Amino acid sequence: MSRIAYVNGQYQPHSHANVHIEDRGYQFADGVYEVVTIVNSKMIDEEGHLQRLWRSLAELRIDAPMKAEPLKMVMREVVRRNGIVNGIIYLQVTRGVAPRDHPFPKNTPPALVMTAKRLSMDKAEKTAEKGVSVVTVPDIRWARCDIKSVSLLPNVLAKQAAKDNGAYEAFQIDADGMVTEGSSTNAWIVDQNGKVITRPTSNEILAGITRASLIRELEKKGVEFELRSFTVEELHNAREVFLTSSTSYVLPVVKVDEHVIGNGNPGSISMTLREIYREFMNAAS
Amino acid sequence: MSRIAYVNGQYQPHSHANVHIEDRGYQFADGVYEVVTIVNSKMIDEEGHLQRLWRSLAELRIDAPMKAEPLKMVMREVVRRNGIVNGIIYLQVTRGVAPRDHPFPKNTPPALVMTAKRLSMDKAEKTAEKGVSVVTVPDIRWARCDIKSVSLLPNVLAKQAAKDNGAYEAFQIDADGMVTEGSSTNAWIVDQNGKVITRPTSNEILAGITRASLIRELEKKGVEFELRSFTVEELHNAREVFLTSSTSYVLPVVKVDEHVIGNGNPGSISMTLREIYREFMNAAS
Repeated sequence: MSRIAYVNGQYQPHSHANVHIEDRGYQFADGVYEVVTIVNSKMIDEEGHLQRLWRSLAELRIDAPMKAEPLKMVMREVVRRNGIVNGIIYLQVTRGVAPRDHPFPKNTPPALVMTAKRLSMDKAEKTAEKGVSVVTVPDIRWARCDIKSVSLLPNVLAKQAAKDNGAYEAFQIDADGMVTEGSSTNAWIVDQNGKVITRPTSNEILAGITRASLIRELEKKGVEFELRSFTVEELHNAREVFLTSSTSYVLPVVKVDEHVIGNGNPGSISMTLREIYREFMNAAS
Repeated sequence: MSRIAYVNGQYQPHSHANVHIEDRGYQFADGVYEVVTIVNSKMIDEEGHLQRLWRSLAELRIDAPMKAEPLKMVMREVVRRNGIVNGIIYLQVTRGVAPRDHPFPKNTPPALVMTAKRLSMDKAEKTAEKGVSVVTVPDIRWARCDIKSVSLLPNVLAKQAAKDNGAYEAFQIDADGMVTEGSSTNAWIVDQNGKVITRPTSNEILAGITRASLIRELEKKGVEFELRSFTVEELHNAREVFLTSSTSYVLPVVKVDEHVIGNGNPGSISMTLREIYREFMNAAS
């Protein structure tokens, strides 16, 4: 089954799916995106992702490319045409095609692109069982990290810094020495008293959908947690560390920079939270 | 004469010039660009723009799409095919097309796109004779503004803020209350003693090519100037204000926020510097 992409109203072979060179996404990073996980052919947290998409668009004053119901129909059609059982769907909306000029163009319809791909659940499970390592890097991003824009160059550089150091992810550290988030994930610690801690949402981090769903599940189950910033020292000395994202779910971290976390194996609380999140996904799918 | 664009080895009608949806420029803003002005069919400061292009690419570890000599040949061919006498050529290099994943892909050739368009010298001259107004906005950009990347979303928002307020440009103000630069221009003031002042280059501003050429001309002519940061108060109370860019040359500013600069007409020093820059362009073209 060859991959199919949706581009501005048309379903096209992925290999030939193009946008114009003056699409503002290409020249100005003037667009936003979402990645939605599909488990057993069902979208996880679809509403949360769409709510965030509408918010990102509104913050940038980009018109919605279509209303929620038709958008959901296209998403389902992309999933169907690509035969995705477990995988992801990627949505990108930009301010559209216009002669290159910084200000917003007038009367320009937004552009909408969607792709989908399969992901192996087994591979993700094996990664989680071993845990991953993380490095820390300075957070050099702009002041509106709450907008899920395609202006991702600093995130690319952070992720490459992780890769250069043999790590899975880079946690970013702000000017005050506090952890903001990963390059494409939210950062969490479990302190020596067993309390789960993650940074509150603000302009400085993306309001992760998996993060929000995990918080909701923690509340339901009465698991104690705290929303506060934590330092890189707290990160290094944490009892457990984990990260969340739509594609990683809840992923234990076993090493941060040169610091082995716990005994170097995934922590028990992290694995319990992964299980709680998996139950939530299974209930949703 | 219909417009022609160069896209990865091919000259194409501009209207049908496309890139793949998984070009990293589109999904990650993972690319850089240059805009070179053409006066009397000659490129102004071509070497300076190419030097900066190589530097931007090196900082991001993107391979050069081709060597300098063939690149210059393509630039000339784009200018020729578009029949440009006075105008600009736009070059964009991205990290190429690869399955979406944050880290740098391996063995992926960079993508190269060029476009060109005519610009009216008369219109630019009329704008300069009247002078322009500027607003100030917080500088919310990332920490590597020295790289001329396509990660321009904050610049787009700043320019739109200018437009929303009936201004030509937005000067950005850092956390210390100092002016960094415009959304696509460098900022200059002339203080009450007649001294010309502009911010020194650093990671916080783009090393403007027109800025550098003007500095070189000032040195040649023995015009006193100072490279230092200046406050928004100094900007508001300046004797003269002007901006520089490849397409604006030296452009007088006659109003900043609610502050009329001088008597509200272009300042004499600004106009003299514009004339000095024009002489430099005429000598080069």
